[in-house]
Amino acid sequence: MSENTLQLTKSENQKAKPASDQVPFGTTFTDHMFVMDYEEGQGWHNPQIVPYGPLELDPAAMVFHYGQSVFEGLKAYRTADDRILLFRPDKNLQRLNLSSDRLSIPPIDEEEVMAYLQQLVSLEQDWVPSTPGTSLYIRPFIISTEPNLAVGPSRKYKFMVILSPVGSYFAGGLKPVIIHVEDQFTRAVKGGTGMAKTAGNYSAGYQAQASAKKKGNADVLWLDGIEKKYIEEVGSMNIFFKIDGEVVTPELNGSILKGVTRMSIIELLRSWDIPVTERRVAIDELHRLYEEGKVEEIFGTGTAAVISPVGELNWMGRKMVINNHEIGELSQRLYDTVTGIQTGKLEDPFGWVVEVK
Amino acid sequence: MSENTLQLTKSENQKAKPASDQVPFGTTFTDHMFVMDYEEGQGWHNPQIVPYGPLELDPAAMVFHYGQSVFEGLKAYRTADDRILLFRPDKNLQRLNLSSDRLSIPPIDEEEVMAYLQQLVSLEQDWVPSTPGTSLYIRPFIISTEPNLAVGPSRKYKFMVILSPVGSYFAGGLKPVIIHVEDQFTRAVKGGTGMAKTAGNYSAGYQAQASAKKKGNADVLWLDGIEKKYIEEVGSMNIFFKIDGEVVTPELNGSILKGVTRMSIIELLRSWDIPVTERRVAIDELHRLYEEGKVEEIFGTGTAAVISPVGELNWMGRKMVINNHEIGELSQRLYDTVTGIQTGKLEDPFGWVVEVK
Repeated sequence: MSENTLQLTKSENQKAKPASDQVPFGTTFTDHMFVMDYEEGQGWHNPQIVPYGPLELDPAAMVFHYGQSVFEGLKAYRTADDRILLFRPDKNLQRLNLSSDRLSIPPIDEEEVMAYLQQLVSLEQDWVPSTPGTSLYIRPFIISTEPNLAVGPSRKYKFMVILSPVGSYFAGGLKPVIIHVEDQFTRAVKGGTGMAKTAGNYSAGYQAQASAKKKGNADVLWLDGIEKKYIEEVGSMNIFFKIDGEVVTPELNGSILKGVTRMSIIELLRSWDIPVTERRVAIDELHRLYEEGKVEEIFGTGTAAVISPVGELNWMGRKMVINNHEIGELSQRLYDTVTGIQTGKLEDPFGWVVEVK
Repeated sequence: MSENTLQLTKSENQKAKPASDQVPFGTTFTDHMFVMDYEEGQGWHNPQIVPYGPLELDPAAMVFHYGQSVFEGLKAYRTADDRILLFRPDKNLQRLNLSSDRLSIPPIDEEEVMAYLQQLVSLEQDWVPSTPGTSLYIRPFIISTEPNLAVGPSRKYKFMVILSPVGSYFAGGLKPVIIHVEDQFTRAVKGGTGMAKTAGNYSAGYQAQASAKKKGNADVLWLDGIEKKYIEEVGSMNIFFKIDGEVVTPELNGSILKGVTRMSIIELLRSWDIPVTERRVAIDELHRLYEEGKVEEIFGTGTAAVISPVGELNWMGRKMVINNHEIGELSQRLYDTVTGIQTGKLEDPFGWVVEVK
């Protein structure tokens, strides 16, 4: 169908590319972006790569009022021999559709969109930085655009992909962070939107994050919304505990995001014959195990930082110092292995990376 | 300060005004809109009334990705002697600031914005329809506009007001609706954003609403997110029960919206010496009282419908038919009184209405 043929409009100017280790996360964008429209009765149509620039939206566009929106985040890496690799992009597009389903947004064709995404990254390949720890962050997202104040699903949407070169998450290498265990505010609850990457989940956490930061914490560890007892996730990361030689992570329960890094870490640990269990983890159980000296390492996992070691957890005035604020051996090994595979430095026995031609 | 002087740019064209009883809710907008900007360090500035038209936003504008947005809904009514009345607009601006606080959005100056809002409605007064049951719907809203993919509060916002003439909510007068009691999905939970009018709360309910509609229900009655036991609110309305001569409504608990119509109904009932109690109402308690024949009337309250009688509640396969699917006497009296005050037909002993000059 000619309607689904990608149209390319090249930018007349090329922006200067920033030094990749000096870019603050998510504020510099490349020369082009991908846009595709949805209209009820017509489906997704009009895929285009166009110069990066402002969107024109009616002030009554539903995304501003009722928040139907979903997004993804993944990265393109440059290898030493100048190839461009994506890390498990199929998992991100699968999850985008899962998020869309929860928000009553029509699904995209994952294969078709994968091809568009690769064409965009290929066009912008000079933007993929080469300094160790840097990458090109890829942000696919969908917003509802019908101008209508009646509460209900939009009949129009825009799917877009924008690209942003990003520096190293930890300037001086892996650095353990201090995390506040939130016991008042709630991020998500059973039956809610916690497992979806949707805009509303993020701003809902700002108050708790601001209050945690004031007390010297880098981020918040969320507990379940019902009993404020079971550990869910940190800010925008999933969380893992190494307890007495075993690795434990909260099981997916509908209010925890199904992280791509999370699932990769689990597969990696299994391939190393390190026992890993997905189960409910109560904060008081963790505290008890900590008092018994059994909590060896804690780390978050996510696309931004890959592995983020946790040096300290603060829960209702009780402080748990983990591994003497130092990076654990397993955390370091996981970080080195995943980033090694992502950047082509290490072999990829899992078939995780996809080369952009 | 000249920076805070309202700038007016008049539209060169005037749109045709639709027949007010034929307009679908929220799809027709007037000739002008109000816009004001916020920037960190500068505060709210640059208030303007400009021709209604599209917004230009960077694709990385934070509202698309992390959902910092809040809104309000209120109405302007035309009286028989052609005055324009607003109903308790101060309560809406107060609540806007409450919502903003939860979403880490900077507060607006309520008095200043009240003046701008009145100037906009005054300019557009020919758009306020006169047919009984019609009004001019007013939608103030704030969106985060900083282009930045780092999760955290935006440093730029836009506050806008758009206006939409709306027809009668119930074409043939008050009509009792059938409501599904939702026992799977969750709208809001303690510690979440339930008491804020923020975009994400609304699309979170679409799946439940679609499934309820398939089964012949008009909307969903939400239960608390923790025990799925205590009644919270219906779609975009608060809910009231007349039980054995007494009126009961769920108490505000942090996950229920503080409705302006809700508070007006409570004040009205008290002025009539009808007992009204705000307390927790369990769905099984309601069902037991229903079985005992004590549930006399149920009605929702909100800006859109004012009073919406409930003719039937469906909860886990149990059907509760209320007042034989007919409008209750109290529901009708409340509707007549509130709409009478709103449109200047009845005296306003409470000082609820504000005339737009």
